[in-house]
Amino acid sequence: MNLGFYVPTRIIMGSGVVMASWTHLRPLGSKALIITGRSSARINGSLADVTVSLEKAGVSWQLFDQVESNPGIPTCRRAADAARYFQADFLVGIGGGSPLDAAKAVAILARNDLADDQLFSGPYPMGALPVVAVPTTAGTGSEVTQFAILTNDRIRSKSSIFWDGVFPVLALLDPGYLAFLPRDQKINTALDALSHVVEGYLAKRADPLSRSLALEAMGPICQGVRALAAGEPDRECSEGLLYGACVGGMVIAHTMTTIVHGMGYFLTYEKGIDHGRANGLLLGDYLGFIGEADPRGVERVLEACGCRNVGDFKALLDSVLGTRETLSQAEMEDFSLRSLQSRHGANTARQVDHHTVLELYASSLGTKE
Amino acid sequence: MNLGFYVPTRIIMGSGVVMASWTHLRPLGSKALIITGRSSARINGSLADVTVSLEKAGVSWQLFDQVESNPGIPTCRRAADAARYFQADFLVGIGGGSPLDAAKAVAILARNDLADDQLFSGPYPMGALPVVAVPTTAGTGSEVTQFAILTNDRIRSKSSIFWDGVFPVLALLDPGYLAFLPRDQKINTALDALSHVVEGYLAKRADPLSRSLALEAMGPICQGVRALAAGEPDRECSEGLLYGACVGGMVIAHTMTTIVHGMGYFLTYEKGIDHGRANGLLLGDYLGFIGEADPRGVERVLEACGCRNVGDFKALLDSVLGTRETLSQAEMEDFSLRSLQSRHGANTARQVDHHTVLELYASSLGTKE
Repeated sequence: MNLGFYVPTRIIMGSGVVMASWTHLRPLGSKALIITGRSSARINGSLADVTVSLEKAGVSWQLFDQVESNPGIPTCRRAADAARYFQADFLVGIGGGSPLDAAKAVAILARNDLADDQLFSGPYPMGALPVVAVPTTAGTGSEVTQFAILTNDRIRSKSSIFWDGVFPVLALLDPGYLAFLPRDQKINTALDALSHVVEGYLAKRADPLSRSLALEAMGPICQGVRALAAGEPDRECSEGLLYGACVGGMVIAHTMTTIVHGMGYFLTYEKGIDHGRANGLLLGDYLGFIGEADPRGVERVLEACGCRNVGDFKALLDSVLGTRETLSQAEMEDFSLRSLQSRHGANTARQVDHHTVLELYASSLGTKE
Repeated sequence: MNLGFYVPTRIIMGSGVVMASWTHLRPLGSKALIITGRSSARINGSLADVTVSLEKAGVSWQLFDQVESNPGIPTCRRAADAARYFQADFLVGIGGGSPLDAAKAVAILARNDLADDQLFSGPYPMGALPVVAVPTTAGTGSEVTQFAILTNDRIRSKSSIFWDGVFPVLALLDPGYLAFLPRDQKINTALDALSHVVEGYLAKRADPLSRSLALEAMGPICQGVRALAAGEPDRECSEGLLYGACVGGMVIAHTMTTIVHGMGYFLTYEKGIDHGRANGLLLGDYLGFIGEADPRGVERVLEACGCRNVGDFKALLDSVLGTRETLSQAEMEDFSLRSLQSRHGANTARQVDHHTVLELYASSLGTKE
């Protein structure tokens, strides 16, 4: 048995946890830059909670609230300039995957002068500022991973920073913030979380501990997806989603993701399809595809998701996906070729080639006439 | 849902992992003090592996090999003097719970001038040296906890250091070392691991994630206990035990232990009964006792352990315990009173008082005429 586990983040989850955790902020320094998007952190109250908590801890703060969805390098550079100018000792990322991942990139850029490609490749000789993560969606798991995924215009897709130095030092999870999410974001982020635990469980890099964590998270995530299909998840379901998404982050911190993410990035970059939705579109046929190579693994996934078979699992996805987007034949050809250039194929439990990836795109998304 | 998770230790498990992990040692400094017992690390090859790995990393080392079972404060002070004199940058603890816990205490004492009581209470203004843990038993879980349990002659029992600063930075688990353990130590350490996951699952401080980890570990630990009852565990069983014991450490890092440990410490201090065995003697009747307060929890434990009922679970324990020790009525009275002075009672899922603890001692151990 070969096994690895490393999640150095202190995870605290509960109602009111941001305000209650101010004692954990003080040791991080006297100045914090808050990194978030334009509005959601104001609407759901997380920004107010963070500022009160920082002030209670005697930490002065500034706000950078210009992180866009699927953030790019220029935004991270501007925030890093703000962090340097303010002489921030640490960063607080608030929001979904976009602000959290941006905060990690800023943590590196505030300490290191790097060209764009070096931002992804490392090394980072000056280390990184500590990051506190306050997720306000239940999806990304970024609060407990060493990844930061940024839009990379050079390769017309997304690229990953993958470095232990950007594990957040502290993750504060308050389920109360989730209530303010628009319905489509609740669905898309839940699909992202589901894809993390399903891909993680079936990844080549999976080990007994990451598999156990993945199975633990599948139940509450699928319960959340079912609640979303039926209407509005109640408080308990939302908590379960936030918990499942966080555990899902712990899983992919060990297993990384697979071809679903590799393929999904092109749907996001080229077609503007939300990241979680992109994974959700591909996940059902992926499960069928992997079933040929790892039938027992797929069986365990289906069981933990409360599904009788792959068709049942696809119906669960369809219950929240609505009408699927379509791709032209030329787009499928193009995305398939480009998908195979990433590391995701090598972590997939069944051999992938141009033909199989093309088939996965075709069966998962309709073909445009 | 309130939840906390914090295990900052990098865990690497596999055959030959100590030698393979030298790259993780170099960043810790240029001088290491190895802390171990008198002989086992020599016999099982772990000491040789550690020294080769340190040398490969360019780290010079010295050896402190005088840690006794249930180590006391004087031993830790002597090792701390050695660490200071050598100007060690970090420590490598090799062995069972005794050397690993001693290494944690030394990590504090090498940096702080403290009276005995302050060693347990803190604070530790100068921090602690980093500790690398190389467990050679499958029991303690100390490689992934913030506890160090030392014999404390002042209170004639054991006292705990409980501080996040002593989480090992690195835990290297090679199942190969387990083969060299004497049979009684294999049994006793397996019982310690079992008590961690059973107590952890049922502790008042348990949360969904710690419960999930506890259930994950129960299977391989019980499989190991059954293999020990039948003869000699094979390689796979030993791996399972090492894995289960480590996950058990992650569990009690969150849940702490309960009255079983609180009661067991007196069996060890006053009667010389091995720590794991002491827990094993008490665990069966404890499960019956908790069943009244948390029947569903006990049911889940029994299921994960592959037992039909509490009697079945006790039979599993008896299959490796052999003849149980006896206590005089006066000893039971004395230990019961003293057990209630620790924090363990408050973490136990059912109210404990002098009468109930006395009954647990009496039913778990025979009464001496």
